[in-house]
Amino acid sequence: MKYSKAMEAIKPSDIREILKLTANPEVISFAGGVPDPDLFPIEALKKATDEVFEKSARRALQYGTTEGFLPLREKIIAMMKERGIDADPDQLLLVTGAQQGIEFAGKVFLNPGDAVLCESPSYSGAVNAYLPYLPKFIEVPTNDDGISVEAMAKILEMEEKPRLIYVIPNFQNPAGRSWTTETRIKFMELMEKYDIPIVEDDPYGNLIFEGETPPSLKSMDKKGNVIYLGSFSKILCPGLRTGWICAREDILRKFVVVKQCADIHSNSLAQEIIATYLEHNDINEQIEKIKQLYRHRKDLMIAAIEKYFPAECKYTNPNGGMFIWVEMPDGFNTRDILKDALAEKVAFIPGGGFFPAEENEKCFRLNFSTMHDDRIEEGIKRLGRILQAYIDNGKKCDEA
Amino acid sequence: MKYSKAMEAIKPSDIREILKLTANPEVISFAGGVPDPDLFPIEALKKATDEVFEKSARRALQYGTTEGFLPLREKIIAMMKERGIDADPDQLLLVTGAQQGIEFAGKVFLNPGDAVLCESPSYSGAVNAYLPYLPKFIEVPTNDDGISVEAMAKILEMEEKPRLIYVIPNFQNPAGRSWTTETRIKFMELMEKYDIPIVEDDPYGNLIFEGETPPSLKSMDKKGNVIYLGSFSKILCPGLRTGWICAREDILRKFVVVKQCADIHSNSLAQEIIATYLEHNDINEQIEKIKQLYRHRKDLMIAAIEKYFPAECKYTNPNGGMFIWVEMPDGFNTRDILKDALAEKVAFIPGGGFFPAEENEKCFRLNFSTMHDDRIEEGIKRLGRILQAYIDNGKKCDEA
Repeated sequence: MKYSKAMEAIKPSDIREILKLTANPEVISFAGGVPDPDLFPIEALKKATDEVFEKSARRALQYGTTEGFLPLREKIIAMMKERGIDADPDQLLLVTGAQQGIEFAGKVFLNPGDAVLCESPSYSGAVNAYLPYLPKFIEVPTNDDGISVEAMAKILEMEEKPRLIYVIPNFQNPAGRSWTTETRIKFMELMEKYDIPIVEDDPYGNLIFEGETPPSLKSMDKKGNVIYLGSFSKILCPGLRTGWICAREDILRKFVVVKQCADIHSNSLAQEIIATYLEHNDINEQIEKIKQLYRHRKDLMIAAIEKYFPAECKYTNPNGGMFIWVEMPDGFNTRDILKDALAEKVAFIPGGGFFPAEENEKCFRLNFSTMHDDRIEEGIKRLGRILQAYIDNGKKCDEA
Repeated sequence: MKYSKAMEAIKPSDIREILKLTANPEVISFAGGVPDPDLFPIEALKKATDEVFEKSARRALQYGTTEGFLPLREKIIAMMKERGIDADPDQLLLVTGAQQGIEFAGKVFLNPGDAVLCESPSYSGAVNAYLPYLPKFIEVPTNDDGISVEAMAKILEMEEKPRLIYVIPNFQNPAGRSWTTETRIKFMELMEKYDIPIVEDDPYGNLIFEGETPPSLKSMDKKGNVIYLGSFSKILCPGLRTGWICAREDILRKFVVVKQCADIHSNSLAQEIIATYLEHNDINEQIEKIKQLYRHRKDLMIAAIEKYFPAECKYTNPNGGMFIWVEMPDGFNTRDILKDALAEKVAFIPGGGFFPAEENEKCFRLNFSTMHDDRIEEGIKRLGRILQAYIDNGKKCDEA
């Protein structure tokens, strides 16, 4: 069977393949990227579901509009308003998780050979979604202040401009880093000179541990070039697969047409359940619970890393989200290390898949949202032993 | 803002734009393509939902596997077995409605300029899904026996073979026609000579009014080139957006990777609800109810057409599904006629969008699944008056 060129470019997600290996409950897995199901507001969602079945089952089980259930779109607009984004329902499209918005942006904007500019590292699920559109990737260096606007400015001076910019300014997957307010202001000032669509992927923006989340790019978007992606996956639950795209109306119309072709519309029942849940519950209380638990686990993991990891390992200490990023010295390959880790029943995600343009195998991602305290301590301890052995033996670990 | 070439090819769905005009409840709409919500088994689905919340809420609200919830895949395999299709879970992928399967086939197989072969007419939602892949369309003549295998044989002798075949052998949208068993056998015999993937879209195969549905192409698929698309939208409810792709394992793996990039996986809650519903209910009883009501309405609509439509109009008399197809004499344009019809508060879908390669504006589609008896009679009466005026005035209707 002969496949398309898009298909030749695409590859199975590393992460999802590793996750299959960690299905064994004995494995202490820092590999996942899923929320803790203990935090799902099951009772409140059950009540909302009961109400939907009682009041609007015929509608909730029927085909709906491509744009999505209007009362939910209105509630999302109110939520975004709290984050400084002004939008109206014609600028909002409901999608099957923010992932669908990422992928649609490829279809809407990319021709083969076009350049996609992203942070280094960037979300591997976005990289994989854009690969079938046969782009080049340009990675922009990122540090604890966020993307390097200076490096971006140089790239944008080149003759061939990127056709699409993809960024995750808050508690980025994989590195856990956030852009400072100053970085955001400088970034948006720079972007005012260009007409390049900017996908602002923001699944973690609400999950800040201390202080207030800096303003979103969309809230500073004078030209209307920012395509903001939001999601209920990390603040409510992911199984309902409900996210949204907020963009200038003329841009959003293109996404609506792509959505019609892709799957007509997203699950109606899920949209009505979430709208009803938001009617009767303050999602900020739910978010507060998530933040407290994740913060506790992150602090615990950082403390364990300080205690058990070799001094040669650098790591981020995120103020939100679900991930810590660890960098080994040059020359180490975390795909190899993972094999030893799995033998010791502890797992992480090797960082290679988060670098679409560069070769970089010395980093890995740790997730802190799902493991309980004792497993965080024990898992980091085991991992520290393995990393130490690699350091001691210089890239080789015979006896972990 | 500059968009991709794919985006320039894509266009908003005619149908969904017309449906917005028919939202006024005074309009007698034969334009829709939706099931009658009075038939949704709301109580049984409510019970299934309660059980999911009670027994497996944490799982149903969490991320799931890309392939879909295994117990539901197993139940679908049992359902397909009744239709003569042998498959195992590794050959099945759950998607957000069969529409998503249609679209994915474009991504998996099509490069720009490739030819897609389809029936004439064919489902406009498939045509629109493939347009962004910049294909050529080849329409194959279709009559009451189904696709013309003779015409197909000639097309396949040409040097440039189609890269993808898309067909709807059962009660096709829009024409309501079904392929005879003989057509299917001849078609599959012909296709044995080639290695061309065949998308068999089968949302209506269960909804046969009299006799038994002829065997699916997939059940005769010796080479494993048929990609079968099934859906719960017309036999249970569409709001849960659950359909499936059944294909040879190596082909299916490609669709799984595309699904990962597209939206990670479909709604988990919906999958668990449907699996639980199927556990406790015989879906064939549900299908029987749907068939009886739709058959009644189809008979009524055909009787009204016989009574009120001008003798110059040809129409299909389907043995299943949801649609009747009407053909006006040459020279008439049903997009114009629709304007007069909407003024008289009756609606249909003009046929032009169902012909991807040819210019054909003289046909239109009537849906019989949702309107009650008196409205079918009254709507067809109004429409008959309008059509008669067009016939009498020769393409022009000043006073409907």
